[in-house]
Amino acid sequence: MPNERSSSTSPARTAVAVLGLGPMGRALAGALLAAGHPVTVWNRTPGRDAEPLALGARSAASPAEAVTGSTEGATGPAEAGAPLVLLCVRDQSAARAVLEAAGAALRGRTVVNATSIAPGDARANAADAEARGYRLLNAAVLTPTPTIGHPEGTVLLSGDAEAFAAHEATLRALGTVRHVGADPGRAAAFDAALLDLFWTTVHGFLHALALARAEGISGAELAPYAQGLPRLLPPLIDRLAQRADDRRHPGDHSSLASAEAGLAHVAHTARARGLDTSVLDAALAVTRRAVGAGHGSDGVSALVDLLAG
Amino acid sequence: MPNERSSSTSPARTAVAVLGLGPMGRALAGALLAAGHPVTVWNRTPGRDAEPLALGARSAASPAEAVTGSTEGATGPAEAGAPLVLLCVRDQSAARAVLEAAGAALRGRTVVNATSIAPGDARANAADAEARGYRLLNAAVLTPTPTIGHPEGTVLLSGDAEAFAAHEATLRALGTVRHVGADPGRAAAFDAALLDLFWTTVHGFLHALALARAEGISGAELAPYAQGLPRLLPPLIDRLAQRADDRRHPGDHSSLASAEAGLAHVAHTARARGLDTSVLDAALAVTRRAVGAGHGSDGVSALVDLLAG
Repeated sequence: MPNERSSSTSPARTAVAVLGLGPMGRALAGALLAAGHPVTVWNRTPGRDAEPLALGARSAASPAEAVTGSTEGATGPAEAGAPLVLLCVRDQSAARAVLEAAGAALRGRTVVNATSIAPGDARANAADAEARGYRLLNAAVLTPTPTIGHPEGTVLLSGDAEAFAAHEATLRALGTVRHVGADPGRAAAFDAALLDLFWTTVHGFLHALALARAEGISGAELAPYAQGLPRLLPPLIDRLAQRADDRRHPGDHSSLASAEAGLAHVAHTARARGLDTSVLDAALAVTRRAVGAGHGSDGVSALVDLLAG
Repeated sequence: MPNERSSSTSPARTAVAVLGLGPMGRALAGALLAAGHPVTVWNRTPGRDAEPLALGARSAASPAEAVTGSTEGATGPAEAGAPLVLLCVRDQSAARAVLEAAGAALRGRTVVNATSIAPGDARANAADAEARGYRLLNAAVLTPTPTIGHPEGTVLLSGDAEAFAAHEATLRALGTVRHVGADPGRAAAFDAALLDLFWTTVHGFLHALALARAEGISGAELAPYAQGLPRLLPPLIDRLAQRADDRRHPGDHSSLASAEAGLAHVAHTARARGLDTSVLDAALAVTRRAVGAGHGSDGVSALVDLLAG
């Protein structure tokens, strides 16, 4: 259980090195400390460790020291220091720089890379890890920092299944953890698809607020009706996902022709008020191509086949 | 109450003409009939009236006959026939054609135009109604046909407030009805903003399904995680709406720089799989412009000010 503090029920706590102390790195370190794990932290820019230190972490001057627990870096045995290393930095190039800096100190250990990276990068990192003699799991943290350490915190991991099995109990300190496949890129692929949905939706709502404002409608007036969307989505998500999998797209609920008409109507209304309509125009163009290709009476899920090329 | 059938508690039922018998027109007619109102229906293409006829409607051969209850059309007095006319056709040009065809028969009556039209068209129709001596309410039906006649059916109306007051009791047969302002375009403006949010979100999910498929993830695998979005949205909608109204955009939850990074990451991942990325590219370009204009550390709600021009 996350945040389990009772030492009477605790198994031996795994030492963990946390590399990268941005908001997410600090949240990961805090959850591990709260679960009773010895944690050593490192951050490229010094001075970010006040929060983990206050919670009981040790601080290291280099990635190798954080991992081995020794200022000698890679010279110690793999049994010394942290068998589990969490890496959470800005992007793939920062992640590669830290992995390079840690060098041979990683040998025999398991690295969980929670940096937000592309599926292809995760696969390349896994190949590199194998060559260098450490095990790699790629992690996608799906929920915001305040959820970490609680059951609603959700972390997907992919890659080395044995490494996951070995460290699952420790990783559970972070929240709900799921291994989604041996392909190292899978967690990142889930993450990218969910970010696609999230950012497109956020953009849509911000545009809706701009359109409402241009028509003299405040956010406070629009919001109660916009709350209809989260009520509408759960069955819609399941239905569209099912139809995409079946590659059968009946037009009984909502056809591509009706989507085209709806998008054209909104784009026209927004343009009449001088709003930027580039996102709507792009969605309309894709939809129009589908209708032009004879899919007008198909359900909107037919777009999945066309977008996927 | 919608679907109130007990005649002992019923006030005098208002006769209603329903013009247009697409799926929504049939749903509107059905709800009025279920509430005990005498309904006369008309549709441009004959043969669409089987469902309302089975529920007790009468059928008319022309809009004027449906409205006046007389085959003489406009020659009868306004007291005869239907004081309330519901119009629900394909688009603004179809709506104008029906209103022209009904001609002087509409004088002294109230027309509720539930056709999906632009705010500017609603305003033009209202000016025309005033010149021709009938009252017009523009209606936006926010919920799908199965909700009509039930409390979850939601219809916004704007325009002539007296006409709304006079017919509110009858219109309640359709579901939850709200008058959102005397400006005739307001209901259509709410509708456009909500359609903007809806279709952008649907497009985002279809694209997410396409990206997942390209990465070997099925809809059934993605959907449980996508269900996180409707759980995340309610507070997000309220917060973004509030910040848009305040025109204060603290970057504490999510900055435009993080939105730019997220969109760039997803677009890169999608492009690597050969997906169409035009919608993501458009959202990214808008976000990048905002960051370039110095709003990178502002919250994402700052985009509302920039989209609204």
